[in-house]
Amino acid sequence: MRNIEDETLDPEDWETSRAFAHRMVDEAIDHLAQIRARPVWQPMPGEVRAGFKTGLPADPTSLDQVYNEYRDTVRAFAMGNIHPRFWGWYMGSSNFTGALGDFLAAVEGSNLGGGNTGAAQVEQQVVDWLKEIAGFPESASGTLTSGGSMANLVAHTVIRNLAAGYDVRREGIAALKTPLRFYASDQVHSCHQKALETLGLGARALLEVPSDDRQRMRLDLLEAAIATDRAKGLQPACVIGTAGTTNTGATDDLSAIADLCEREGLWFHVDGCIGGVLRLAPEHAHLVAGMERAGSVAIDPHKWLHAPFEAGAVLIKDPEAHFATFEMHGPYLQLQERGLIAGKFLADYGLELSRGFRALKIWMALKEQGARKFGRLIAQNIAQAQHMAAQVEAHPLLELVAPVELNIVCFRHVASDEDAARALNTEIMLRLQERGLAVPSDTTVQGRHGLRCAINNHRTTFADIDAFLGDVLRIAEEILADPTA
Amino acid sequence: MRNIEDETLDPEDWETSRAFAHRMVDEAIDHLAQIRARPVWQPMPGEVRAGFKTGLPADPTSLDQVYNEYRDTVRAFAMGNIHPRFWGWYMGSSNFTGALGDFLAAVEGSNLGGGNTGAAQVEQQVVDWLKEIAGFPESASGTLTSGGSMANLVAHTVIRNLAAGYDVRREGIAALKTPLRFYASDQVHSCHQKALETLGLGARALLEVPSDDRQRMRLDLLEAAIATDRAKGLQPACVIGTAGTTNTGATDDLSAIADLCEREGLWFHVDGCIGGVLRLAPEHAHLVAGMERAGSVAIDPHKWLHAPFEAGAVLIKDPEAHFATFEMHGPYLQLQERGLIAGKFLADYGLELSRGFRALKIWMALKEQGARKFGRLIAQNIAQAQHMAAQVEAHPLLELVAPVELNIVCFRHVASDEDAARALNTEIMLRLQERGLAVPSDTTVQGRHGLRCAINNHRTTFADIDAFLGDVLRIAEEILADPTA
Ligand SMILES: Cc1ncc(COP(=O)(O)O)c(C=O)c1O
Ligand SMILES: Cc1ncc(COP(=O)(O)O)c(C=O)c1O
Repeated sequence: MRNIEDETLDPEDWETSRAFAHRMVDEAIDHLAQIRARPVWQPMPGEVRAGFKTGLPADPTSLDQVYNEYRDTVRAFAMGNIHPRFWGWYMGSSNFTGALGDFLAAVEGSNLGGGNTGAAQVEQQVVDWLKEIAGFPESASGTLTSGGSMANLVAHTVIRNLAAGYDVRREGIAALKTPLRFYASDQVHSCHQKALETLGLGARALLEVPSDDRQRMRLDLLEAAIATDRAKGLQPACVIGTAGTTNTGATDDLSAIADLCEREGLWFHVDGCIGGVLRLAPEHAHLVAGMERAGSVAIDPHKWLHAPFEAGAVLIKDPEAHFATFEMHGPYLQLQERGLIAGKFLADYGLELSRGFRALKIWMALKEQGARKFGRLIAQNIAQAQHMAAQVEAHPLLELVAPVELNIVCFRHVASDEDAARALNTEIMLRLQERGLAVPSDTTVQGRHGLRCAINNHRTTFADIDAFLGDVLRIAEEILADPTA
Repeated sequence: MRNIEDETLDPEDWETSRAFAHRMVDEAIDHLAQIRARPVWQPMPGEVRAGFKTGLPADPTSLDQVYNEYRDTVRAFAMGNIHPRFWGWYMGSSNFTGALGDFLAAVEGSNLGGGNTGAAQVEQQVVDWLKEIAGFPESASGTLTSGGSMANLVAHTVIRNLAAGYDVRREGIAALKTPLRFYASDQVHSCHQKALETLGLGARALLEVPSDDRQRMRLDLLEAAIATDRAKGLQPACVIGTAGTTNTGATDDLSAIADLCEREGLWFHVDGCIGGVLRLAPEHAHLVAGMERAGSVAIDPHKWLHAPFEAGAVLIKDPEAHFATFEMHGPYLQLQERGLIAGKFLADYGLELSRGFRALKIWMALKEQGARKFGRLIAQNIAQAQHMAAQVEAHPLLELVAPVELNIVCFRHVASDEDAARALNTEIMLRLQERGLAVPSDTTVQGRHGLRCAINNHRTTFADIDAFLGDVLRIAEEILADPTA
């Protein structure tokens, strides 16, 4: 069938590829099975870094050699978030079934922009499941996105266009008579500011309402701000409630915000990138009571559902507004009643046209493990955070810098003053990372600097927590014994 | 180490997973090796579709069973773009090494938002290679995106903020004194309109300049439009040149646009989602001469580099403006000189914070195959399009509806008038799809409807083209013999 002169990216001999792929799978499994014995992270030597400066390869290299290079220079210097003692920033720890899902998705190849395919059905089923998880009605629309930042951006685009009340797609923001305002606590994730900047509303469209001593939005101040804004001729459009803040895991009083939004006629958006899946853990579901009354919610399966990057999602209770915001068809993209392009066009619900099959990894893992298991893992991480907090509080040299509301522990080794504490705890963090013992990150809460452990990790054990705190104390001692080292 | 009560997503027994993963890899390879023997696409029976309505699974299912379900209800109804006779819309056909890359990326798990990791080095190397491909200098900045739509959006955000000339991130578009204008041909991809809508500039900020009979932007009309706009008090900001239009593969006169932009002091952006990689094929590089003079270019590795979805990229010659547009750090994301978060923060160059390791699949395939091979495959697709066009022109019942400039062939079976042609060719397209013979899409060029074959496929052979045209003629005969069937 294939002419001698026809070339393809397929291998000449599938059997060589087969043997290679089997080896790769074996080594991937060995790597995961032994992950605990490896350093969480290690710094990259200069000569390895220099190796990444070689120019575009013109000629072929055997896949074997490419893979060896990958293993020795890339995988060896991974971020470490699949390791049981990684709690830096906020991310999931992936899972093997999800990785198989990404492989199958890439082999199968479907473009999720739209089309009458099994893949499109899987995406819609995953969106339906996320509605169940968030307590949203089946009638809501939704879409998978590359992550939480894009999920929130998609929601804010819909909200902007609705609030503007004219054809903002055509006319742009310049035609806006009264500037829109979005409200969130001062703990809100920075992607909301980025979204409003992108949307042409400007960072000034986001009013950050001070939070209380548990990092929850002060609703009295929110209410006052709305009144002041109205008096100034601004147009309040949306309140963003956070279900699990990035900094400390605080959750705003979502029910009270829902009430307020109803009273004031505002859109209620929930950033549930962290806490949007909390209803899976029945004993913690009360924390997000009221989320189900929001008009939209962002959920991030690559966080507490541990989908390999990337996978975010947004759900919107006004499917017509959602569609009206993004629908767009060139002459080369007309829908049909029959054939491959029949059915809902998924790109009509977001910013991407070509879209990957990121639904598959979520679908496979949820089916394999069952949703209840994910709920237990969420509860386990919360229990681990409480355990860490209790150890911190019990130790004279350690102190919390924020109350532990969820799975994030912000604490520090005590020091003589704020500057000394920042210096000491930063150095503790860096040594923990450099020695591959653990990866915490750091943060500042109400002026107090500390280490931050976001325990969003299905491999973490209670024993890891204890060992980690031991390492913190040991390294602190070492630093204090020789501050010049 | 692990307490009896600690749970994880890892399997209890890695050996079972290992056996399963091996089976999955074997079946994936068998599927690819036999892809030619399968229907390109097949419609989904109602009972399969109904199966996707089941609610959130609470309890576990064996991975074996999940996989079987995937195979029978998802993979069986794939889009078909990995098949040699798929030429619908515009997309790549994936590749096995890329699929292994996605698997490895998911196992390794790194978050490409930033961090001192091998993965971040790979992404930067891939961006460097894309600069070489596009003829951009090493000093340019760039980032991988989920696709071409996002790549163009990132570029337009930078251009908007630069052109506005004030702190548009803070103040928004409302403070803009003179409305910005972007220019592109009427063949420009719809994602540009979507981008300007998103950015709050509105669709009216995009002026679509009529194209000539070869679907290239009329530069005389462009120049006149700029002058008129200036006279009206609008602010010309950017000309978008397309290197390979979606509809017909036309390429604007990029050198002339570069000259014009220099003269007029406008930003020159190239949408090279299709043609941005043409310089890999030396005999076709002249088509995109002038691209290297642009201020920014969008490239789409999931098209002609056949990366599995998703992978787009954007390159920008003003790294400071690029960084200034997107840089953003919360208190929980402060950079350090040492440790895991040292180095360039990749999320400072786009809209996503958490980011997947999409660089790996591109890196592995480029290394394995060598860039020259990709060049030959590009040339092969162009030759196949020329071959198809020659067959069409030689046949009395077939006609081109647009000149073939690249790898896209728009043609039709003749009919008595435009309505009849549309009806006939639409039905031909649907039957080709429904019978799994081939997937062309359709389009309208200057009022004339036709089938559209975007031959962006490394598995297509010249024999596929001939067989396809035979199928088109046969099905047309069948329809014309019994128009009521
Ligand atoms: C509360 C919250 N919202 C949004 C985001 C952004 O999500 P992503 O990194 O997936 O873009 C994060 C990420 O940490 C987050 O914690
Ligand atoms: C010229 C051009 N620009 C942009 C795009 C959008 O790219 P993507 O589908 O990767 O978002 C396409 C897609 O077909 C295209 O052909």
